[in-house]
Formats: sequence, structure tokens, C-alpha cells
Amino acid sequence: MCGIVGIVGKSNINQALYDALTVLQHRGQDAAGMVTSKDGRLFLRKDNGLVRDVFRTRHMKELIGNVGIGHIRYPTAGSSSSAEAQPFYVNSPYGITLAHNGNLTNVAQLAKEIYESDLRHVNTNSDSEVLLNVFAHELSQRGKLQPTKEDVFAAVSRVHERCRGGYAVVAMITGYGVLGFRDPHGIRPIVFGQRETEQGVEYMIASESVALDVLGFTLIRDLAPGEAVYITEDGELHTRQCAANPVLNPCIFEHVYLARPDSIIDGVSVYKARLRMGEKLADKILRERPEHDIDVVIPIPDTSRTSALELANRMGIKYREGFVKNRYIGRTFIMPGQAARKKSVRQKLNAIELEFRGKNVMLVDDSIVRGTTCKQIIQMARDAGAKNVYFCSAAPAVRYQNVYGIDMPSVNELIAHNRTTDEIAELIGADWLVYQDLEDLIESVEGGKIQIDQFDCAVFDGVYVTGDIDAAYLQRIENQRNGLEQGAEQVSQATIGLHNNEAD
Amino acid sequence: MCGIVGIVGKSNINQALYDALTVLQHRGQDAAGMVTSKDGRLFLRKDNGLVRDVFRTRHMKELIGNVGIGHIRYPTAGSSSSAEAQPFYVNSPYGITLAHNGNLTNVAQLAKEIYESDLRHVNTNSDSEVLLNVFAHELSQRGKLQPTKEDVFAAVSRVHERCRGGYAVVAMITGYGVLGFRDPHGIRPIVFGQRETEQGVEYMIASESVALDVLGFTLIRDLAPGEAVYITEDGELHTRQCAANPVLNPCIFEHVYLARPDSIIDGVSVYKARLRMGEKLADKILRERPEHDIDVVIPIPDTSRTSALELANRMGIKYREGFVKNRYIGRTFIMPGQAARKKSVRQKLNAIELEFRGKNVMLVDDSIVRGTTCKQIIQMARDAGAKNVYFCSAAPAVRYQNVYGIDMPSVNELIAHNRTTDEIAELIGADWLVYQDLEDLIESVEGGKIQIDQFDCAVFDGVYVTGDIDAAYLQRIENQRNGLEQGAEQVSQATIGLHNNEAD
Amino acid sequence: MCGIVGIVGKSNINQALYDALTVLQHRGQDAAGMVTSKDGRLFLRKDNGLVRDVFRTRHMKELIGNVGIGHIRYPTAGSSSSAEAQPFYVNSPYGITLAHNGNLTNVAQLAKEIYESDLRHVNTNSDSEVLLNVFAHELSQRGKLQPTKEDVFAAVSRVHERCRGGYAVVAMITGYGVLGFRDPHGIRPIVFGQRETEQGVEYMIASESVALDVLGFTLIRDLAPGEAVYITEDGELHTRQCAANPVLNPCIFEHVYLARPDSIIDGVSVYKARLRMGEKLADKILRERPEHDIDVVIPIPDTSRTSALELANRMGIKYREGFVKNRYIGRTFIMPGQAARKKSVRQKLNAIELEFRGKNVMLVDDSIVRGTTCKQIIQMARDAGAKNVYFCSAAPAVRYQNVYGIDMPSVNELIAHNRTTDEIAELIGADWLVYQDLEDLIESVEGGKIQIDQFDCAVFDGVYVTGDIDAAYLQRIENQRNGLEQGAEQVSQATIGLHNNEAD
Amino acid sequence: MCGIVGIVGKSNINQALYDALTVLQHRGQDAAGMVTSKDGRLFLRKDNGLVRDVFRTRHMKELIGNVGIGHIRYPTAGSSSSAEAQPFYVNSPYGITLAHNGNLTNVAQLAKEIYESDLRHVNTNSDSEVLLNVFAHELSQRGKLQPTKEDVFAAVSRVHERCRGGYAVVAMITGYGVLGFRDPHGIRPIVFGQRETEQGVEYMIASESVALDVLGFTLIRDLAPGEAVYITEDGELHTRQCAANPVLNPCIFEHVYLARPDSIIDGVSVYKARLRMGEKLADKILRERPEHDIDVVIPIPDTSRTSALELANRMGIKYREGFVKNRYIGRTFIMPGQAARKKSVRQKLNAIELEFRGKNVMLVDDSIVRGTTCKQIIQMARDAGAKNVYFCSAAPAVRYQNVYGIDMPSVNELIAHNRTTDEIAELIGADWLVYQDLEDLIESVEGGKIQIDQFDCAVFDGVYVTGDIDAAYLQRIENQRNGLEQGAEQVSQATIGLHNNEAD
Repeated sequence: MCGIVGIVGKSNINQALYDALTVLQHRGQDAAGMVTSKDGRLFLRKDNGLVRDVFRTRHMKELIGNVGIGHIRYPTAGSSSSAEAQPFYVNSPYGITLAHNGNLTNVAQLAKEIYESDLRHVNTNSDSEVLLNVFAHELSQRGKLQPTKEDVFAAVSRVHERCRGGYAVVAMITGYGVLGFRDPHGIRPIVFGQRETEQGVEYMIASESVALDVLGFTLIRDLAPGEAVYITEDGELHTRQCAANPVLNPCIFEHVYLARPDSIIDGVSVYKARLRMGEKLADKILRERPEHDIDVVIPIPDTSRTSALELANRMGIKYREGFVKNRYIGRTFIMPGQAARKKSVRQKLNAIELEFRGKNVMLVDDSIVRGTTCKQIIQMARDAGAKNVYFCSAAPAVRYQNVYGIDMPSVNELIAHNRTTDEIAELIGADWLVYQDLEDLIESVEGGKIQIDQFDCAVFDGVYVTGDIDAAYLQRIENQRNGLEQGAEQVSQATIGLHNNEAD
Repeated sequence: MCGIVGIVGKSNINQALYDALTVLQHRGQDAAGMVTSKDGRLFLRKDNGLVRDVFRTRHMKELIGNVGIGHIRYPTAGSSSSAEAQPFYVNSPYGITLAHNGNLTNVAQLAKEIYESDLRHVNTNSDSEVLLNVFAHELSQRGKLQPTKEDVFAAVSRVHERCRGGYAVVAMITGYGVLGFRDPHGIRPIVFGQRETEQGVEYMIASESVALDVLGFTLIRDLAPGEAVYITEDGELHTRQCAANPVLNPCIFEHVYLARPDSIIDGVSVYKARLRMGEKLADKILRERPEHDIDVVIPIPDTSRTSALELANRMGIKYREGFVKNRYIGRTFIMPGQAARKKSVRQKLNAIELEFRGKNVMLVDDSIVRGTTCKQIIQMARDAGAKNVYFCSAAPAVRYQNVYGIDMPSVNELIAHNRTTDEIAELIGADWLVYQDLEDLIESVEGGKIQIDQFDCAVFDGVYVTGDIDAAYLQRIENQRNGLEQGAEQVSQATIGLHNNEAD
Repeated sequence: MCGIVGIVGKSNINQALYDALTVLQHRGQDAAGMVTSKDGRLFLRKDNGLVRDVFRTRHMKELIGNVGIGHIRYPTAGSSSSAEAQPFYVNSPYGITLAHNGNLTNVAQLAKEIYESDLRHVNTNSDSEVLLNVFAHELSQRGKLQPTKEDVFAAVSRVHERCRGGYAVVAMITGYGVLGFRDPHGIRPIVFGQRETEQGVEYMIASESVALDVLGFTLIRDLAPGEAVYITEDGELHTRQCAANPVLNPCIFEHVYLARPDSIIDGVSVYKARLRMGEKLADKILRERPEHDIDVVIPIPDTSRTSALELANRMGIKYREGFVKNRYIGRTFIMPGQAARKKSVRQKLNAIELEFRGKNVMLVDDSIVRGTTCKQIIQMARDAGAKNVYFCSAAPAVRYQNVYGIDMPSVNELIAHNRTTDEIAELIGADWLVYQDLEDLIESVEGGKIQIDQFDCAVFDGVYVTGDIDAAYLQRIENQRNGLEQGAEQVSQATIGLHNNEAD
Repeated sequence: MCGIVGIVGKSNINQALYDALTVLQHRGQDAAGMVTSKDGRLFLRKDNGLVRDVFRTRHMKELIGNVGIGHIRYPTAGSSSSAEAQPFYVNSPYGITLAHNGNLTNVAQLAKEIYESDLRHVNTNSDSEVLLNVFAHELSQRGKLQPTKEDVFAAVSRVHERCRGGYAVVAMITGYGVLGFRDPHGIRPIVFGQRETEQGVEYMIASESVALDVLGFTLIRDLAPGEAVYITEDGELHTRQCAANPVLNPCIFEHVYLARPDSIIDGVSVYKARLRMGEKLADKILRERPEHDIDVVIPIPDTSRTSALELANRMGIKYREGFVKNRYIGRTFIMPGQAARKKSVRQKLNAIELEFRGKNVMLVDDSIVRGTTCKQIIQMARDAGAKNVYFCSAAPAVRYQNVYGIDMPSVNELIAHNRTTDEIAELIGADWLVYQDLEDLIESVEGGKIQIDQFDCAVFDGVYVTGDIDAAYLQRIENQRNGLEQGAEQVSQATIGLHNNEAD
């Protein structure tokens, strides 16, 4: 998971890019980057770290120009993902920079093709670098000294034909304009909007609508699957459907966990969807145990609070914030001669005994992935004096890999992989465990103004909407994730080196 | 406001100090420091920044030893507070290091005295450096080659006789032990506890009990006003009442805003106190307008959530988290040739329209200081479609200066200074404004296992519990805060220079 | 002036590149960079600063691979030179990296062409980036999936046809090999050599033979003008004459000042050439004033020592090192509210009074450019008690611009521009001033094993050997140097930004 | 060996301190520091590194005030020396800062005393910190609120009584003045001088006169052994003999190697002394082999050039600079999985074959310590084609430890320790080896305007002028040097930690 933003403004837009990246920071805290353009020159800064650490005054001073794109990265392991900060740059044709959120599933094939067809060298395993080169190749094939919007859209069409997977992309063609496009399944989110300024209308493309909101932009709409939006440097906005058979299959996990509650994705309020998840889950709990003895509903902060509050309301049970989240997280240092200490969940959460002592508590989380933290939290609740500890998940059991850009652990680390709910309850030590049903989750998220053909629910049901994921591919990314494939270590170094990024 | 910690352990305690400072980070994000001791040598690291930024692996490797103290600092302006990171060090006698939370109100007089009596040079305006030198002088007056606990407690007694104000202190006497003490009014909080390890019992002194909890220490108790606790390097713990006429006057603002909800201060659960503030405030609202038309109660995150939830429960109104807090805050850069842009509250909060559109909303905050943010939030609620925007504060109106270690703006910047509730409501644009009554606040906080003589409520009622604050003193700190006193700028540089701390 | 190096080795060559750049550091102290390659991946590090500051352990660890190139940069102002560190990289075709020493005089035309013919975006004003793109374009025109040596040499031939100026170049074609080539006039120096190791023969290309010497390589020979050397990754070395009408016109200033004395350029020992400059100059002095009253010959350290010693020997006069050079040079800080202080030559040199008091001294320098330092040194000699201060220059008067890669001040700042020797003597305060005659300088440098057609002596005689330099071009670089051309400031920022180089 | 400076000026003196430290940088490249004072506040910056790296603009801006002291440090191993940067600071009495060059030989005893008499904690093994505390204690014993010059001089007298060894010291008493003093044997050099400015007379104390020269100060004179100079903040200069039986025993090694040639120490020009060393050595060579076959005299740069030139003149043999010194020295990185490579002298020196081929060469060095480099250089001369390689040393054989502040290797590493000249010649591979005779060295250095009682020549003759060095002491420093004593490693960390100095 990553966050992207692109702006065509009427004055320097470095601060706006910075602010947008900060708002999107929940989508990735691993690296940040932006590139701006003025008079045909590019100004780039990217590095590992949070937005506030990567961009200092000395960098901002140099990031001049009215157009630019930015990126924040989630640390992804294995798969075809990259360890490198974005945006990427190729100088031919025109000088193109690109940043993307998602994952290409045929990246190895594409890397081979672009070398053979166009002799293009790729210096990382990043699918973003490959995607950029595919786009650059297709645009250069048009052979124009000055690319028109037709050329740009034609190149996007070719990208859709050649690339597989989920991708939401921003790109800048130096001297011409900023482009956004979304894969033909619309798996990853991307929106665009505008704001009026004294100098004229400014446009922004972003991963989530909240970036528009906070910066005073008005949402125009989500990009449709396969659609592209191209805003020229002088401020003309064009959109075009560039895919042959687009269908809308947005990733349902955005609503479960990834997106901010105040975002609206494909016409659906994430906040509202989470409220409904709480309602649906309450109904299931009541169905399962109409005579339950729950005294209090306690969320695992922060994401689950919305669902948990509504769940409590629906059930008519007291809602209490029994866990306090530590806002400041430190590191555990490994000192010479000392064994590594286990990272305790106590570093992250603390229980208020008052709310647990002698009670039957229903803990609510957004989802359960590895189950490790879950288990510790349940123990913490017991230590705080809880009589019975029940646990519910606003999402169904996570059982399968994600191949469209969300970083998940190996399937063997997923606690629900090949296990029943009862088995999981025993493993995590819950006296009762309730998972949301998938149809309930889907119903919670449906119903917005935009018709959704089918959600990508692969992590829950193992159905890959692009229809081209086979067992061999899944095995390969498992191997990468488990470090069985050569070169993993080395790649991350390469990417650091080539662009001089250092964590210091 | 600052946070302090001291540990006497059985193995290296740098990680424990680090973790404790991280847990206390909410008490100050401006600077951090720690000093450890082994075989008579001190190892110190302090700098501006968050705990996670100040301490890197290279520092931690050098911070060896089983005993040490740490500090995190809140940025304080004006007053006699310091711009310098703590702990401070003097080499005579014994090598003493010290860190403190609070403020001395007779620091100018003390600085003069220690120079004249003991020729001690003080290189900053920090009252901590002065406090350290007073203690060091008094301990050296005992003239012992090896100080006993009697000497240490006698020196603390002398400190109490000479120093005025509020202070919670940790100090380390190199080669001998770690000391904690609290001013004779017990204004600032300080607790101590212990944990069993395979190597023996370890002791910790800290600003708040949550630091003990998270690190697996058991709270022994709060230090009484005027009391000192001294733990020798070999693990003997001694306590002693060192003040002539101690009275317990704890700062009530700890419960309103400063402390973590999961802390217990002077026997009172902060969380529980905040629940009661919500109840009391609900009752007042109902008294004021029994026929109110409030549709929904919405907290201003994060502190007020506890009170707001209970307020809603008590009133039987729906509680909703209508504001989403941005967890990542960026900077506003001033670019050459550009005017500084006003920092918008939108950087911090975003409203979920769904919860405001067409409703009468009651916003709940923990307190109102300048009123600026407040005003913007109310406007944001209106922009989100609220019909009527009501506002209530879980604390009474803030009208006076704090002189015991909480950094407050100049009284002239306090919106409630010399204004009625109606005037304030108009200024912030609220359709209805309700302040908690002071007696209700006090009742909310009272009732724990420890008898509290009288709270320090100076910011609300202007009563200074130490009885020695006159108009001249208040005027002087106002002047300092407003930069009218010479040397302010210079001092902050001095302190940076002498200890080689650099923000970088 | 810059330094370049390329190595095809049998094990990791990062340390060898580092050592070679250190040996060549006298050719530029402004920036340093290197790129290595392994398994088709590139590893790059470049930044402003000395070699020892740019490459830290953490960088060296990542610079893996048996092949690579490196660069150190002299700070050049104005002209078409770049403020950016090298090597540069383009990803199409093959991934090519390149570094060069010299200057292209038709860079503006070339930049236009490569955009129009190949849509290649250039992000700096650096002629190196342009040169790289010209070469990359010509190589891609060959259209080979795997470039042969014929393709590589053909591309070099095309570069020679299209590029004007002086250039000595190293380039690496990722996965294939390392290339060196020299402009058809052979203006800038470049040599290659080999060393035996247990793993096989390793090859190095470098600006000066001293880099080969110090690393234990044996000089094979200088590249002829127009010639290219291409060493494949598996260690096959090929050379080819790629220019139509090559002539050898090496820059004579290398012998005067730029090169290390222990280098051999185009078959001529720089050391020996400097000895002869001393002899010739001695003869001229004796011709001018057979009855001179010189008591002692004193060099201005360091370069002139070789000539001065031989001059003294030839004249039978005592040679004494009367000036001590400060090896450590500090900065002059501009403090707030203080005027900038003039940088004194006393920061660099100090006179030993003993050698000046009451004597007629002949000071010897390698050349006189602005004359400012010269004037201060003469005054220093007088202050030290010299009776008469005579001054001689081992090179003729510097009167014209250099356009082939040596950074010189604006002609108007050259003290000899439009002035007679007498006028100059008066300006610098010398009692007698002697310049080497140009024919004597040429005779001093001639006579090695390689036939030199004609030296590039442009700074002395204004004759530009490439025959294509017109007044308009000279005026343009004057304007750039004087900051009259737009964009100068901006460019330097661009280049910093795009590659994330920061001085920190 | 270290360098010290102190200035009492009429305007900010940070730049002057910086410049003086730069001029003295040859005395130590390991660490640098300075402290300035204004209005009773101290401003300190110190860190590992060269002067130009330690002091950045941001530091200089804070180093305000008209008075201050500075220090540069040579890395010293073993002995009682410190790994910590100076100046040191104690806050009682008055706030005193101090920096010194030399070594105390009774530091362990003193450290014990100051703890016992004054409870003063010392946090390093640095003798400077101990010296500071002894001085501070003695000054505080005077008990004055405002110390007079009598108090200051009395404290220095007490320091002389209590401290053993060699020391040249600068100290600053905050708010009062700057002090310089020299041990009663005058082992280490220290001078003072003055310059006129528009604001009045400014004074400087420094290790060498060259620092005065370069900054435009006029040398007043050397401090006599045991003498102190005290300059009050308002510019009154006082001197006083503070020792009972002062004798002048300056370290002769300053003339051999340590000092800059343009310095004048105790009335003797270092440059002139070195010329005479060349003459005396020439005479000895001629005595040894009147019929020698030396073709050319070649110095090992840089120090020996002065002696070698005069030696050649005296013998009537050609002098040639056959070795070129690399001005830029890089590091040898140890890569994972690679063995450490031996550091070759080729990194430092390169031979010009022309001057060696077929000749009998006499190489001249200032001294021979370990002999390792020596041996490599002789081999290099042979590789360059020399027929016979003769070697002479301008100093006698180095056979004993230094205990007065010069860092020397363990005696067992000294090639001349317990060896005859012939044995050494064979070990280093010289065809002939000539050492200067000690009486000749002494005669070379004698004869200035100041009467020298007896030189400290301990490294040559094992005679320790202070008369209090016993075998036990010498064994102890040998052990420390060889790492046999506990705590060595740890101490260096302590000192880094306490003052937050980091190399980054």
C-alpha cells in the first residue's frame, strides 16, 4: 500500500504536495518523495522516512514549480514490490516521472520485454520502474516531438493491454502535464478534484479524497477503472476511458483498514461503511448468542473504534475505551552481548483496569492477520481482571495472499489460513470469537452512488478478480517473502545506491 | 511540563529509561536526555527532539550501567524555565546529575545566593541548573567523603527551605544512588515502584504511574509532599519526610489535560476523574437547558473523548466521533518571497460531514486556552452542515497564569481572561457555551485513597497555593513571555552551545 | 578540470576506484562519484566534497561489482560546465553511465538535437549529460540487443562527428564493458594500463599515469587523439581509432600546473618538463640581466618548487624555501552584523624572515592568473625585510579564455589581459617581472617519445586548436561567467535536487 | 601533542580562535574545541575532527564574546592521556574552562586527592580534567567572591607544587579573564603577543609564535618556565613567576618534528635549527665516509626538506625532490568477507624514477621511530632503480618513551630500542645509515636569545628532566599503551557520552 498525489497548480506546489503526502501518510511510513517541474527542469527529493523527516527546508527551497507528483511508500517485502523510494525518472522520451500504488503481477515478463524491445535498463526489481518504462516506451512509439493528449491516452491504453495487476498511477511528462490512471479493474483507489485560486483553477489527483478535503480541493470524482485523467501544464483537464473492458472491482480492504474514515472511495463513505460493519457484526453476535452476557464493548484502537461504537449502540451495551494507545513508539535496541527481547504489545497498548475488572468484555478489532497481537491483547484483558474475554473482527477471516499491492505476511503466518474459527479462538485464547461474514462486509460497503461490479475480496475468499493469478505465481511470491529467491537483499541495496538515498 | 524517570536496576537500564521516557513522551516532545552511571563514570546523551530521534543505537551502546535518570522536556517560553535539555551535571561534590519537572519561583534569588555562598557559576537561566546547584551546595556542606542517606535527606530538607515553587525531581549521586523528591506542596506528581527480576529487585521513580505499568513495575505509592526517596546503588530503598509543614496541593490540570488517562495520581485514576467530569458537565448542561435540542455529542480528539462519551451516556444522547485527527503533522515552510501562511486547524482535524449535516451538535473539549483552535473547529462544524454548534469545556475557564511548571500563553492571550462566558461564546462563534464549574471539577478529581488538602487550581481561580506569588513576579514572567526582558534569545543559545546539543 | 577513472577488475573494484580518485584529487576537490556494476545492477554514490568525505563505509559496502567508473570534479563557473556531480546515468539503451573531463563547445546545439531526434530530456546544463545522451542515442541507433565492440566504436565515431571541444571520457555499458575515449585533438589527457592479479589481468583507464603507478598498474599507453579503448566485462581489451583526421594537440597547461609532477602525459614526464621550464627561465633571466643582483631564489609552494630549484641550480644561486604553506585551510565566517573580511594570503602562506631580511629575492611561481595573490605575496616579502623583490613565472602571461575544460576567471580578471609585462610588474608591485617565453615553454614540454603535432596554448596565445571557436562563443561564456545569462543559479539547484545530492 | 590558544579581544574573537587553531592544526588533527564568554555565559563547541569540520556556521554564530580559549588534540594512546576533546569546564568556582598541551605524570594521585579534599568528581582519565580541578580547587580555597590577580597567581603556584610533568595551559575564569601558564621546567612551548586594533589592544596566548604571526599579532615573548600570564577581561595584562625553582628544559623534539619551521620557540627559530641540523649531519657523513659516492640528496617530505637542502648545499651535492607526496589521503575500507589489506606507503609517497635510476641516493628524514615506513621507502627507491640507497636521520636514534605529552609507540616498537645503528640499517634495508649525534642536535638548537638550561631529550637519552620518573611509572604507561590496563576502552566512551560529542 502506498499513497500518491499529483498537482497542476498556479504557483509553487511543493507545500501542497507536502501537505497532501502528510494527510496520506497513514498509507505508508516507509519512504516519501516528490518531484516538481519548472521551465523543463525537474527537482526531485526522495528518501526513507516520514514526510516530516524527508523534506527539510533546504529541500523545499529547491522543489520549485507549479506542477509535480509525490509518493509515500509502505514497506513491502517479497512479491515484486520495490524497496526503492518513488517517483522514478526516465529521461527518454521527454523526461517522465512516475509514482504508483499497487502491484503488477507480470512484472518479470514486462521487464524482459522492455529490455528486448527498447533496450531499456531497469535497475531495481520495482514494478514501478517497469511500469514507467512500459509507459515511456509506448509514448515514445508515438514518435511525437510534442505529445498530444491523444498520444498520452494511447500510451495508457497500451499500458492497460500489457500490464496485469492493480495500479493507481500518477505521472508527469516534463513540460507537458500530469497524468493519473487506474487499472481496468479499478482495484486501487484514485480520485481527482479542483480548487479555485486567485490565479485560476488548480487540479489535484490523489489516492484518497481526504487529501483533497484537507487542502481545500473539491472532489470531482473517482477515476473509473481503466480511465485516465490528463491535466496539461496550462491547466486543461482531459479524461478518457483507455481500457477495452473495464469493470469496477475495488479492494474491499481499503474500507476495512487501509483508508482514512473521512475518505469517500468509489462513492462510499469509509466511515459509514465501518458503522454498518458494526451493525452487521452486532446482528451476527446476537444471532450466535441471543442470551450473551457481554458487559462492555471495548475497541482495539484506533481503526475499530467506529465499528465498535456502532456495534455497542446496536446491541445496547456500554461502549468504553478500555485500552489506551501509546502515541509514541520507541525502538528496542539490541545491545552487544544481550539477547533480543520480545517486543511486547505493552509498548503499544495499556489497559485501564477499571473497565475490565470482573467484567465480560467484547473486544472489537478491524481484522485479524497473524493473531499474535490479538493473543497478547486478550491476555492483557485477563490480567486486568476480565471475567470472560470475547473477541470479534469487523472483517472476515484473512486466509489468502494479496497480489494487488497490499503487503501481507506469508499465508503460513496468517492465523486463519487452514483453520476453523474455533481453532483460532483457542489459539488466541478468546472465550468466544466472532468474524464478520463476507456477505455482511460486502453489504456494509455497497450502496454508494457508484455501481460496483464486484469487490476484490481475495484475502478473504481467494478469488483474484483479474482472473490471471495461478498457483505458480502465488508460490513465487511466497518464496520471495520467505527469502528463498536470490537477490532480494541485494536489490534493496541497489536501489539505495543508484539514487543516493540514505537513511543516515 | 516535563517528564522524569530514575531507575536503580540490576543490569543495564538504558532500554528501560528509554521505554519509560517514550511512555512519558506526552508530557513533552521538545527535548530528551538520560544519564547512566557505571564504575563511577557518567554517560550522558541529550538533545532536542523526540525520544526516538535523540537516542540512536550509537548512543545507547555507550549509555551503560545499572543506574540512571532521564528527562523529557516540554517547550516552555518565558517564565524562569529553561531552553536546555536535561539532566544537568555538576562535578562537585561527587558528580551529581539532576532532572526536574516544575518551576522555581525564586530562581533569581537562588542563583545569586549560590554564586555568593559557593562561587558556583550557572550557565543558563534554567531553574533546573539552579536547583541542582542548591542541592549540590547543601550536600557538600555536609562535608562527607561518602554521603550517607542522612546527608542526602538533610540536603533535600535544605532545598525545601530555600526553594519556592513546584518541583518533582530525580537526581543521581555518582557512585551512591538515585534520589527522588517532591516539593512540600506536592504540586507536581511523582511516584515510585518496583519489579522483581532474576537478579533482584529493581526500583523506578517516575512522573506518572503509567511508566511503571508499561515496564512491568508495580506502583508502591506516590511520594508525599516534601518527601524524598533514596535508592542506593546496591538496591536499598529509603524514604523520608524532609519538609517542615507539608500539605498536598496537587495540580488539578494534570487530570484535565496533562496526564495519561491510564495514570493514577495521588490515588486518583485520571480516567475515572475524566468520566466524572463528563457526568458533572452533563448535569450542568441539563440544568442550564433541560429542554435542549442536542442531537449528537462529538469530542474534540483526543483528550476529551473520555469525558464526552460519559457526558453523552449521562444525557442519553448519541456519541459520535465526528472529527478525524490527523496523526501525522507536517510543517509549513516559508519559501523565499512568499508570505507565511496561516496554519489551519485543517492540518489537525477533519470533519465527517455525515455526523454534522443538519444536526445540533455539542462539541466537547477538555479545556479552552487561547480559543483560536476552538473557533476554527466551530466554523468547521458549520461548514460540515451543522444546524447549531454548541460547545462545552470539561474544565472551567482558564483565566490565570501558571507558575508551577505548566507553560501557558500570556494572560492577555487567554480568551477567558477578563471575559464572561457569553463574551467568549460570541468570540469563538458558539451558539451555546458551557464551562465546567470549578467545584464540579474538584469533586470529579477528589475521592481517591489519599487525602488531598487543596488542589492547585491557579489557572482557574488565581489562587497560588504556595502563598508567595505577588503581582511583581507575575508581571515579570509576563514580560519574559512577551520578550520584553533582555537576554531571552541569548540564553537559549548559550545552553545549546555549552552542551553541544544541536537540533540537526 | 576533472579527473576520471574506469576499471575492469577480477574482484570488487570499489576500493581501487576510491584510491585512484584520491590520487587524482588534485584535479578537483568539488565533488566525487563512482558507479559500479554487478549482475546487471548499478550502484551509484556521488556528492559534493572530497573523496574521503563522499565515500563512507556505508556507501562502500553497497558499491559492489568488478567493473565501474569514477569522477572527481573541479568547481567550474559559467561556461557550459555543470554544477552536478558525475557519473551520469541514462537507462536507455542498456543502462549507460558516463563521466568526463573537458568541455563541449557546441553543447547547446547538441542538447537541441538529442531532444528533437530522440526526445531525450536533459535535466542540467552539464555538457556531460549531453555527451552521454549523444553517445546513448548513437549506440541505440545501432539497434542491437547485445552491442558488439563494433557497435560501441561506431557510436564513438558518431560522437566525434557531432561533438566539438575537448573531452576525455569513461563510460560503462551495463552488463557489457567499460569504455574510454579521447577527443580527435587529444586535448585532455587519458591513459590506460593493466596489472596482473591471481584472478587474472585487470585494466584501468585514468586521467593521469600516476593513478596507475600508485595502484600498481603498468602504463600501456596514452589514448591517441580520437582513439577509444573498450574493455569487456570478461576482460577483453580492444582499441580503435574512431576519428577521421586525428591530430595531437594536448593542453600545455597540464604541464604548467594541472598535472602531478610524477605523471607522464603523451610520453612526456611532467617533472622533467618543469625542470626544463626552470632552465629556460634561468636563461631568459640571465639574458635580460646578466649583471643581476639576485641573492636567493624562493619558490611559491607547491607547484613551482621543481622549476625554481632547477632555475637556482642553473643560475648558481642559493635556493631556499622562504615561504611555509599552511596545509590546513579554514573558512572565513560571515557573522550577523559583521562585514565580510578580505581573505588574506596569510591564511595560506607565511614568510620566514631569515630568508628575506636585507636580500634581493627572486620569487618563482608556476603562472600568474589574476595577480591578486601574487601582489600580496610580494608585499609579504617586503614586510619580511626583502631589499628588492623580483618575480618570475614559469609560464607565459595568461591572456585568454580556456574553452576546453579548464576553469579560468573572466578575461577581464586576467591581470595580463591587454597589459604589458611592465604594467603588470607595477600592478603587482614587483621590482622586476620575468615571464617564460611561449616557445621556451613549448620546448620544455616537447621531446617525449610521442610526436605532438601542436600544443593547445590558447590561454597564452588565443589560438583555439579546434578551429571552430568564434567571438560570439567567447562572449557567451564570458556572460555566463559574469552571471549575465539567465538560469545559472537555478540550474545548480536542479542538479542537486534530481540526484538528491546534499552537502549536509 | 596538542595546540592551545587563548584570546582577550575587543570584539567577537571566534574567528580569531578558529584561525589560530587552523594554523596550529599540525599539532593535532584528532579533535578541536573552543569556548567563548559573554556577559557571564559560556558558549562551547568541541568534537572529533579537523577544525574545518568541527566548526560550522551554525556553531560559529553561537560562539559569541570577546574572550575565549581553544584547543586542538593529537590522538594519544595509553599514558594518562584522554580521548576527550577540550576545553573542559567546571562550574565551581566562577565557572572555569581549561585546555592544555602536555602530560601530568602524577595524575592518579591528583585525582584521588581532589576527590578526597574537595569531593570533586572526575569523569574521564584525562589529565586535563584533573589539572582543571586542581586549579579550580586551589582558586576556590582563596574564597574570594571576586578573584584578584593575586588569587589567580597563587592558585597557579599551588598547581606547580602539586602537579608533575610537562604542561602548557590556557584557562578562562568566566567573567574575569584568560590565563596561561607553563610548567616549572618549561617543557612544552607557550608564547603570548598583542595586536593593536581600533578598539584597543588585543592579547593572544598560543602554543607557537606562528599563530601570532599569521593573525597579525606581535610576539611579546615566551612564557618562562613556571611563569603565568593573566589578562583580565578589560585588557590588563599581568605576568608572574609562580614556581619556586624554575629551570628551562624545553622539549628538543619540537625542533626536530613537532613545530612549524616558521615558529620561534624560546628564542630559537625552528627553521634555522633545522638548517643547522642539515649542516651538522653533512659534517658527520663526510667524517664517516670522506670518499662517499652519493649522487643526489633526496628528502622524505615534508619536514626534512629544510635539513636536506642545507645538507646537500654543505656537501656540494645535488638536491632533488625525488618523492612526491600525496596531499589527499584516503581510507582503506574493510569490506565484509575481505581481509584487511596492508596500508602501503604508496598511498603517501610516489617516487620519480628519473631521480633514482642508476644513482646512489642519500635519503634524509627528520627522525626514525618505528622504521616501518622507512623500510618501505628504501624499497621504493630501489624499485625506482637506485644503485645504492643511503639513509640519514636529522635526529639521533629514538630509543625511549616520552612522558611529557608526545605520543610515541611502545618502546618495543621503536626500531632503535636496544639496537645498534648497523642492526637498524640492516632491518630497514639501507646500504648506509647515519644518525645525527645528540650533541650535534643540541648545538643545532641552542644559541638563541634565551638561555636554555638543558633540553628535554628523553626520547634520545632516557633522561627525564623532572627527575621523578621511575621504572614503575614507565612500566605502567607501557601497559596502558599495550591495553593491559583495564578501563581504557571504556573511558573513551565515557568522555564521548558526557559531552555529547559525536563524530557522526
